[in-house]
Amino acid sequence: MALYNISFIGAGNVAGSLAAGLAAAGHRILSVASRSGDSARELASSLGAEWRRDLTVPAECDLLIISVSDTAVGTVAENAVISPGTLIAHTAGSVPLAALGRSSGAGVLYPLQTFTKGFPPDLSQVPFFIEATDSATLNLLREIGESIGAGAWECDTENRKKLHLAAVFTNNFSNFMMTTGETMAREAGIDPVLLRPLIGETARKALRTGPEAAQTGPAVRLDTGTLKSHIELLSFSPQYQKLYRLVSKMIAGHYSKKKK
Amino acid sequence: MALYNISFIGAGNVAGSLAAGLAAAGHRILSVASRSGDSARELASSLGAEWRRDLTVPAECDLLIISVSDTAVGTVAENAVISPGTLIAHTAGSVPLAALGRSSGAGVLYPLQTFTKGFPPDLSQVPFFIEATDSATLNLLREIGESIGAGAWECDTENRKKLHLAAVFTNNFSNFMMTTGETMAREAGIDPVLLRPLIGETARKALRTGPEAAQTGPAVRLDTGTLKSHIELLSFSPQYQKLYRLVSKMIAGHYSKKKK
Repeated sequence: MALYNISFIGAGNVAGSLAAGLAAAGHRILSVASRSGDSARELASSLGAEWRRDLTVPAECDLLIISVSDTAVGTVAENAVISPGTLIAHTAGSVPLAALGRSSGAGVLYPLQTFTKGFPPDLSQVPFFIEATDSATLNLLREIGESIGAGAWECDTENRKKLHLAAVFTNNFSNFMMTTGETMAREAGIDPVLLRPLIGETARKALRTGPEAAQTGPAVRLDTGTLKSHIELLSFSPQYQKLYRLVSKMIAGHYSKKKK
Repeated sequence: MALYNISFIGAGNVAGSLAAGLAAAGHRILSVASRSGDSARELASSLGAEWRRDLTVPAECDLLIISVSDTAVGTVAENAVISPGTLIAHTAGSVPLAALGRSSGAGVLYPLQTFTKGFPPDLSQVPFFIEATDSATLNLLREIGESIGAGAWECDTENRKKLHLAAVFTNNFSNFMMTTGETMAREAGIDPVLLRPLIGETARKALRTGPEAAQTGPAVRLDTGTLKSHIELLSFSPQYQKLYRLVSKMIAGHYSKKKK
């Protein structure tokens, strides 16, 4: 496996996880830059890298990874000072490759995972989705994704946006359903922490068979009595009633279509 | 701990899990009855219990557990032939205690968990919610819940229904969001199995801090650009657009209320 010199602009949860993973895989982290100082300084020092406040990247850098907020990617790419031999990539699901403003030497390295400060995910399980302006950059990103993750899959900007949307449903929306479950438990005077084992088993079940096969409950079995009773229990909130009706209808529709 | 003689009517996933857990905790399973033969015969034989086709329960039975479909609970309770000393309980979240048709010796033992054939959950993590017509029955159900589960909590019929609704949001609805994530991945030409690590991390994160604190994504940070772009990507389905808009609005509303 080829080893590379890599710099970061950005020092958030994604940058922190990737930098640590890259260093562990033998790559060398040259520098970490960010306007907000502390997290970058901490990350740089933990990896024996240089901490920078400006956007100048060491000349021997092979790949600059820009891991900042979606709206900042373009400006950072424009203002980064790099050598002709340095490639640049961002890590955002929703940001086009074109935002980097280059016709060569630019790419995207999107990890399909949620990153939490202090709890880095197991990178070896994370699939990376890559796109690039040219095959040399694509190959380097493929090597990087394979060296630290579950592998690298080519995916253009449009499909990467769809994948990001898939991640919103899988992570953000399912998480909100669990939060709603907690709200209902509180309505019943029950400590929501007692729902945690159900959260765990819900994921284990979905991981075993995929979520589509794991579906149970009143909507999929068209148990109209229970559906009606649940809607009555939600009479304190027309919005929760609307949510319950819509999701139940979609579940019923999804599975009745499959049976046909 | 007192040990009891227990019979089952019903031999589905809940009955199977509970019967195995009760036997492992030292209770004696006397008999398992069900109209549909095979699963009951299998369960009875695995526990050294008698397999019955009728609803007559051995005279020395302390507790008859009725674990059948919601709509069948009442009829089964009416037709079960038991001795005067035998207590009876059902395990359903949505069925009132009154469905058992008795003013004494009847109760509910509701495990807040999802049960899958062939994959019994770790019962020691499962909270049991109990209700009874009288304190003797309540005490026995408490002992049972504590002997095989995470503990037993008193919960009346109305609040148990709310808990069951909480479980629908936590399990059924979050699972459907994950299924929707898979649908979107397919739209992007990506194998949905690549979303599995995200499913795992979503649950780990929710278990660490509770789902309310774990929330991330465009809706909670009011990223209107991404929200708009996602709605455009869903233009192939007005129903998915409606779902996306409603859940995003509810997430935004939930967290903006909390900040105030």
